[in-house]
Amino acid sequence: MAMQRTPLLMSNILDRGAKVAPHEEIVTATEDGVRRQTYLETRNRAHQLAHALRQAGIGVGDRVGTFMWNGSRHLEAYHACAGMGAVLHTLNIRLSPKDLEYIINHAGDKLIIVDADALPLLQVLKDVIPTVEQVVVATEAGFEGWSTSLPKAVDYEAFIDGQPTEYDWPEISENAPLGLCYTSGTTGNPKGVEYEHRSQYLHTLTQCMTDSMGLSGADTVLGVVPMFHAMGWGIPWSALMLGCKQVMPHRFMAPGRLLSLLADEGVTLSAGVPTIWQGVKNLVEANPGQYDLSSLSRLTCGGSAPPPSLIRWYWDTLGVEMIQGWGMTETSPLATLSRRVMKRSQLALSEDAQFENVAKAGQIMPGLELDIFDEAFNRLPHDGETVGEILIRGPWICSEYYHNPQPERFHDGWLITGDVGKIDPEEYLIISDRSKDLVKSGGEWISSVDLENHIVALDGVAQACVVAQPHPKWDERPVALVVLDGGGSVSVKRILDHCAEAFARWQLPDDVLFVDSVPLTSTGKMDKKVVRADLAAQGYQLPDLRDKAV
Amino acid sequence: MAMQRTPLLMSNILDRGAKVAPHEEIVTATEDGVRRQTYLETRNRAHQLAHALRQAGIGVGDRVGTFMWNGSRHLEAYHACAGMGAVLHTLNIRLSPKDLEYIINHAGDKLIIVDADALPLLQVLKDVIPTVEQVVVATEAGFEGWSTSLPKAVDYEAFIDGQPTEYDWPEISENAPLGLCYTSGTTGNPKGVEYEHRSQYLHTLTQCMTDSMGLSGADTVLGVVPMFHAMGWGIPWSALMLGCKQVMPHRFMAPGRLLSLLADEGVTLSAGVPTIWQGVKNLVEANPGQYDLSSLSRLTCGGSAPPPSLIRWYWDTLGVEMIQGWGMTETSPLATLSRRVMKRSQLALSEDAQFENVAKAGQIMPGLELDIFDEAFNRLPHDGETVGEILIRGPWICSEYYHNPQPERFHDGWLITGDVGKIDPEEYLIISDRSKDLVKSGGEWISSVDLENHIVALDGVAQACVVAQPHPKWDERPVALVVLDGGGSVSVKRILDHCAEAFARWQLPDDVLFVDSVPLTSTGKMDKKVVRADLAAQGYQLPDLRDKAV
Repeated sequence: MAMQRTPLLMSNILDRGAKVAPHEEIVTATEDGVRRQTYLETRNRAHQLAHALRQAGIGVGDRVGTFMWNGSRHLEAYHACAGMGAVLHTLNIRLSPKDLEYIINHAGDKLIIVDADALPLLQVLKDVIPTVEQVVVATEAGFEGWSTSLPKAVDYEAFIDGQPTEYDWPEISENAPLGLCYTSGTTGNPKGVEYEHRSQYLHTLTQCMTDSMGLSGADTVLGVVPMFHAMGWGIPWSALMLGCKQVMPHRFMAPGRLLSLLADEGVTLSAGVPTIWQGVKNLVEANPGQYDLSSLSRLTCGGSAPPPSLIRWYWDTLGVEMIQGWGMTETSPLATLSRRVMKRSQLALSEDAQFENVAKAGQIMPGLELDIFDEAFNRLPHDGETVGEILIRGPWICSEYYHNPQPERFHDGWLITGDVGKIDPEEYLIISDRSKDLVKSGGEWISSVDLENHIVALDGVAQACVVAQPHPKWDERPVALVVLDGGGSVSVKRILDHCAEAFARWQLPDDVLFVDSVPLTSTGKMDKKVVRADLAAQGYQLPDLRDKAV
Repeated sequence: MAMQRTPLLMSNILDRGAKVAPHEEIVTATEDGVRRQTYLETRNRAHQLAHALRQAGIGVGDRVGTFMWNGSRHLEAYHACAGMGAVLHTLNIRLSPKDLEYIINHAGDKLIIVDADALPLLQVLKDVIPTVEQVVVATEAGFEGWSTSLPKAVDYEAFIDGQPTEYDWPEISENAPLGLCYTSGTTGNPKGVEYEHRSQYLHTLTQCMTDSMGLSGADTVLGVVPMFHAMGWGIPWSALMLGCKQVMPHRFMAPGRLLSLLADEGVTLSAGVPTIWQGVKNLVEANPGQYDLSSLSRLTCGGSAPPPSLIRWYWDTLGVEMIQGWGMTETSPLATLSRRVMKRSQLALSEDAQFENVAKAGQIMPGLELDIFDEAFNRLPHDGETVGEILIRGPWICSEYYHNPQPERFHDGWLITGDVGKIDPEEYLIISDRSKDLVKSGGEWISSVDLENHIVALDGVAQACVVAQPHPKWDERPVALVVLDGGGSVSVKRILDHCAEAFARWQLPDDVLFVDSVPLTSTGKMDKKVVRADLAAQGYQLPDLRDKAV
């Protein structure tokens, strides 16, 4: 032994922020303002929570569910569970009761911490979650009068009150489980991804690299992405390690509140899905000069690809760099990121050329390996044209699902991501589509994402969603659902002419349907499964099939 | 198993730079200019070198010595050895033949790669290094005519010529040894520190964090610190991972050549000991406007503490941030770093207050733990006043010396660093001194470093070196050796009056000796052991003892 064998435990980095920046703030949005507490208070309360959990029977490896928005108490639960070696199971508040029941039972959650406003959603499960021995209710102003018949319900403050503020974090294996997060599968039951201390530790260091999100202790971060999605993209961990000021929106996710928080708290970095940033953009445009966003420098955008026009708008209008990221629950989630300049050769590029790079999913994070493969798992060339299945491997990539291995999702140590894409000669990943959302027409593939990005760049269009519809001759053909800006008017012909400027004739949508909104998944992505199901339920037929049916 | 068990091997990050930035440059200084090669060429040559080493009998775990300056072939040796699992043993070119003999035999080097200009220094050992089976000579222009009687000497280019450019890096244990570096001990034989893949991997990620050196693929780095000191502070590894442009000074370390390289190659970040930056400063001042340093943004400074006046000069004159670091061979070496702004609360500070922080050794890197202790190993308060022994632990801190454990240098899993210092309430480490350089006077400690920093801030003073001299009553008393700027004239009284402005009367030097230069160690630090030995050899006596002797 030549070097110390310090295990890569989150407890070795968790308390650091409170040590180097004890007076820095954690700000949580409330009904009529914000609540503030310091890092030192947060750390002490997290240690108290760990003591209370231990007294409640929670030991190393036990699952503690959280059914919470982004807020200081959720952060304390992150901190306490990671420190004491319990497994933090973040429950998605937006899931159906059926999925929640499945997930809580599958994980065997022993205790659940729940935000009082979300308590009714959990209450309905009272007779079907027998592993849950106790619920702890985090009460924000306005919800003091909560009541529930869930077992041994106790108020969060009473739960931790009087506990010591120093918990001696145990030394456990670095491969011990840290967290559980279920993916809302498109078929079958949700599947659990179990994060480990080592995997999340490495993910945290990588997230703080300059060529990654570039997080610094001098940053003020606002994670819009819920902490129940892939550990809030890892931002809570990085912030706890660095001591960044953290701003947490709790249940107040409307663009107006987010914009107020961004402006009033001097946020420098925020993170969320494209639909969030689309909403914020709309509000900024509708209220010129109202929000002071001069502190804001970068928006990390993941979940689905932001349209290039949106990226460009933030840069040109606000001087804000939108950092595109690609990843998924199974990849912890940080896999690729695209910064405006990531290598020296890009410094000399024109601004337009720099933006061509930002519109891609980005470069692989150090330590991970990613490649595109054909159906026989042969590697495909990185020519920027050949499209293949994206596989990925590395120390924070999932190797199986929790108590449900799903070997068909893995190949020879790689995760089969379910996305298809290409890699260009500069090693940028470009996502073509989810493999299940690609439109397979006449033996060729049409990217629904490419069509959507092109359509949404048209003035007057707020959102576009392209899905495949069955066709007897071509197998599938694309149909575009389009949401117009309030009061706008754009013709079908205008949209198709616009598409014809960039796409071949056979790639153009067969139909354009104007809709008021596009259904979203619980993670804020367009829910194409629901869109396809709705069209089927309506008996929708492609135009040329209608003619034939007549 | 929930997450992939990818080992933390350098081979998983080494080839990344060549992949994402194949056309980026490695620039090596030569007698009359520079030599350039791309990352792709360097990577391919490293793979060829690995094949050649394997054919020469080098296997996993075998020690390969390098006796080389910073240059592209040394980088290839780093790359090849780390990839194939051989142990890179970087030999310090400036060591005495006696120390080199000890080190080569202690490590059992099987093969040594040597720069042709340094060959004569190795040649003298030909009869006393029996483990060395072969030497490979890296030939730069002007040294083509080398000859040696060292075994099986072969030219580097002939050695790798015709080898395949693809070596299938083996999957070895992440705790396998990666490198060996001997510290030039002040007593006894040099001691070896053995780096491991895992320790250096974590060190590399940490170095690239924004709040660390903030390395980016967009940087151009010039490591002045030799690659035979603590793996060149890790910069070669980080650059290989990110694909930074690298500029390597080879044997040309004079300030003039360094300044030309900094200017001509558009260096953004450089790293070296304070004496280097003092020399560069002097030359810039003597030649105003001659060097375009507009690309330069940060200088990482370690080995010993830079005087605050030097840090301030670089910021005020050149807009260059000097990043102070503290560490040692035993700490890989990155332990603490001080950036101008590392936390949000510092954004609002005045420039002067920000500089008070930069003048400290800095904040501990995430994942390490550092504290100050009294002689009974009780932790001391972080009040910025209490001075204690600095102990450190973490995943890239040495746990014993190579084949020479030295248990007295460790305590309960911590490394006893041999430095003493204090920690302030903001968790900044402030180094007081090497414990052996402290002046122990009348039961109190006087920091030689504090006195030196104060004296050197005086106009006309180029360098100051304070050492203890024995005193029958006070135990020890400080004496200052002072080097004046060329042509300057400063009186002893002026120096003492200047010291009296900041220090108590009993802390003032008993004597000021003007000298032409201060002897330096092989790592460029002031060699106080030699200073003290010289004074003893000269029969030096403190002024008040001289009086009594008469």
